[in-house]
Amino acid sequence: MHKTFIALLVGIVAVATFSNWQVQTTALTTPPNVVLIFMDDMGYGDLGCYGASNYQTPHIDQVAAEGMRFTNFLAAQPVCSASRAGLLTGCYPNRIGIYGALFPRVKMGINASETTMAELLKTKGYATAIFGKWHLGDHPSFLPLQHGFDEYVGLPYSNDMWPVVTHINSEEQKRRRAAFPFLPLIQGNDTLRSIQTLEDQAQLTGIYTQRAVDFIAKNKKKPFFLYVPHSMPHVPIAASAAFRGKSKQGLYGDVMQEIDWSVGEIMKALKKNGLDKNTLVIFTSDNGPWFNYGNHAGSAGGLREGKGSTYEGGNRVPCLVRWPGQIPAGTVCTQLASTIDLFPTIAQICQATLPTQKIDGVDITPILKGNLQASPRKYFYYYHRRNNLEAVRRDNWKLVLPHEGRSYEGQTPGRDGMGGLAPENHPYPLALFDLNRDPGERYDVQAIYPDIVAELQQVAETARQDLGDDITNRTGKNVRLAGILK
Amino acid sequence: MHKTFIALLVGIVAVATFSNWQVQTTALTTPPNVVLIFMDDMGYGDLGCYGASNYQTPHIDQVAAEGMRFTNFLAAQPVCSASRAGLLTGCYPNRIGIYGALFPRVKMGINASETTMAELLKTKGYATAIFGKWHLGDHPSFLPLQHGFDEYVGLPYSNDMWPVVTHINSEEQKRRRAAFPFLPLIQGNDTLRSIQTLEDQAQLTGIYTQRAVDFIAKNKKKPFFLYVPHSMPHVPIAASAAFRGKSKQGLYGDVMQEIDWSVGEIMKALKKNGLDKNTLVIFTSDNGPWFNYGNHAGSAGGLREGKGSTYEGGNRVPCLVRWPGQIPAGTVCTQLASTIDLFPTIAQICQATLPTQKIDGVDITPILKGNLQASPRKYFYYYHRRNNLEAVRRDNWKLVLPHEGRSYEGQTPGRDGMGGLAPENHPYPLALFDLNRDPGERYDVQAIYPDIVAELQQVAETARQDLGDDITNRTGKNVRLAGILK
Repeated sequence: MHKTFIALLVGIVAVATFSNWQVQTTALTTPPNVVLIFMDDMGYGDLGCYGASNYQTPHIDQVAAEGMRFTNFLAAQPVCSASRAGLLTGCYPNRIGIYGALFPRVKMGINASETTMAELLKTKGYATAIFGKWHLGDHPSFLPLQHGFDEYVGLPYSNDMWPVVTHINSEEQKRRRAAFPFLPLIQGNDTLRSIQTLEDQAQLTGIYTQRAVDFIAKNKKKPFFLYVPHSMPHVPIAASAAFRGKSKQGLYGDVMQEIDWSVGEIMKALKKNGLDKNTLVIFTSDNGPWFNYGNHAGSAGGLREGKGSTYEGGNRVPCLVRWPGQIPAGTVCTQLASTIDLFPTIAQICQATLPTQKIDGVDITPILKGNLQASPRKYFYYYHRRNNLEAVRRDNWKLVLPHEGRSYEGQTPGRDGMGGLAPENHPYPLALFDLNRDPGERYDVQAIYPDIVAELQQVAETARQDLGDDITNRTGKNVRLAGILK
Repeated sequence: MHKTFIALLVGIVAVATFSNWQVQTTALTTPPNVVLIFMDDMGYGDLGCYGASNYQTPHIDQVAAEGMRFTNFLAAQPVCSASRAGLLTGCYPNRIGIYGALFPRVKMGINASETTMAELLKTKGYATAIFGKWHLGDHPSFLPLQHGFDEYVGLPYSNDMWPVVTHINSEEQKRRRAAFPFLPLIQGNDTLRSIQTLEDQAQLTGIYTQRAVDFIAKNKKKPFFLYVPHSMPHVPIAASAAFRGKSKQGLYGDVMQEIDWSVGEIMKALKKNGLDKNTLVIFTSDNGPWFNYGNHAGSAGGLREGKGSTYEGGNRVPCLVRWPGQIPAGTVCTQLASTIDLFPTIAQICQATLPTQKIDGVDITPILKGNLQASPRKYFYYYHRRNNLEAVRRDNWKLVLPHEGRSYEGQTPGRDGMGGLAPENHPYPLALFDLNRDPGERYDVQAIYPDIVAELQQVAETARQDLGDDITNRTGKNVRLAGILK
């Protein structure tokens, strides 16, 4: 009875706020262009508008000031390939069989039967391009051109999957040097050039940016989807000469300032081509900071843990969404949402039809229109590793399920790397966190909210029936397979 | 050599940015009105624009969108009286002999020889008023009218310093009931009425707001300084009938939504009286959340500890500053600043002459004008309790000195109170934190930055010579005395 009343009340307020914004927004004529900028290992605290204090991100902060800034936005999983699989399909990555980070020459990748965001928008006549890191399989059959993209220039996997990295131990280096003599920069389905030195890596942000700017100019007469998944600031980090030594936070700050420059260039290109108003710009990240690498990693902004952990520091990332006249400027959305929600949201905005296969994302256009009081997303499943269900969430309540996971805490980070110092099998017991009052996940409140623990245990059970759980040896009913090379 | 180069570079960029904003701001004609809204025990995570997700603060968020939002802003000390002493005088509170929280009928208070912000602005012909909690001595000689304010309506001390509180144990209640039968609402130097019930407390936000709105209307023809130090959300929290049950976060959320309404009323009054443009509005808090009180306390937003601790959760507070045409809208300042800097900053803006006695605040108008790359404040001393130097800071580097202090961690907060559960003598060893990468103070990096530890030990020594340190039994050279009743 009480719950119903509250729900009703929230509903009324939500409708009132929504209508209010509806009046203020201008009528939508043609579906907008979509520009999706995706960072690699950039943490929740790594932008000026999220509190970074030792370097400047004015162009990115301007996107925030002109659009909506999210404070409870979760990557699909806290690791590269899985996170990207979720972003591009609107599915929990384990639903479509993509786990962890795919290594070079692995015999799997995204299944041809899945619909990517590029394929979705192709149905509406969009020109599509990706300039940056793919990481959903490096065999040609898994590369972007076979999954909805018209154009592709970028790395097929992470920029540390090459031989001359400085941040791994020498035995590992030897093995990799033999296996992968260089990092291929792909154009279409072929290698355009080899990336062999840190100086080569330092050119990547510039290369992706130039391609993006050219693509915008070339396609100004038709709708387009531009996906820019940067290789930076994933280790080994590198900045071009124009940016080196320019920040107060060493190389990491320099790299972030170059990324900020890149965002500025893309925004400038949109304005120059008269596309500023009818372009939906989204800026987010694949997971939190990789603390293994000392001051070559970013900041989780006070959240617990980082990349590779399902504590908030691993999953929660900055997210900015800008669309003048449609999304109220300078707003902050504190409600729960995820990268997997972008797929159905973009489908709604661009009037594209969703695939018939089940997806997990929910349409968050009500939030973008200004209803900041509630989210269409009520639950989130924190899966990690192969198929481990490590936590579940309802609104602000997060139940951490017993599991073994990565822990950076208690370790001493190095100046330029603390590789190997984060144990992967740290035991985490059951714990309940109220993320509204305790976003840092410091105070376990299971003892005083047994009702919420019980409710979330049921949510976990629902997740297991649907997607399985390797920790409890459960098999999910509704999982699909990744693409496998014959 | 390297440091000089970086400093030079930062200087050049800073000057460039500063000049850029200068061009965009309009010329200043008359000194502005000053409205200073000061919260009680409101934490870093307690506003929508700082990530609070279970209730809405749209009016406060609008001040942020139209002004500057600080992410590294520190209260002078993490407890009521000391924090207010610093705010109103621009001094470290221990410099002027104000420590901790002053209890009712204490025989001390702010010294008549100190210059308060109200006295400073009286020299420029400002009308001055305080509507809210004073807490710098409750004997008439220490009350606001004797320290520069023309008008005063409010509580002389904290709203829990009365007999019928629900959040302290019964023996303590008995003692207090005998000593202080009611909480006096003071007008001028006299008791206007007694506050005896929680329902009475629920009227306080409304009373302060109405007085503030009336004061603005009455003084629209001359410059004024309006100081609104709310009693909420300090325990015992209470919301008026119009706000009860309206948030998704129980009574605490209701209280915060009423505070947000109050800010909206004050902004509306400024606009209605044509004063919107030439009024400097500042919104901040005295210290972090008092976690002892379970869900009757707020959020530190991922920072470590809360009220009564010199970890960032105790000292770091939200701060918004709005002055249309002078302060760039929608900006985020990530640089270090403190409540003690507001005194000299307001002096600069209002063209008032600083007192001859030493103050500790620095003028941060360069930041307000848009130079977001560096702060005039380089150091901060984290003092607490009587005169304990618990930490020192230079830019993003914070050295926690060995001390015993409050710790909420490892405790289980209650639903409506966990009083007595936060030990005051938790031993904290030496630790170095890089607050830029680690605002949550989770990773001690003293082992890898011994040079910075040594530098900050020297900063601590400078603080001790100046202000003393009870932990090391040092006496400071430059401390002054609080006012003492004869």
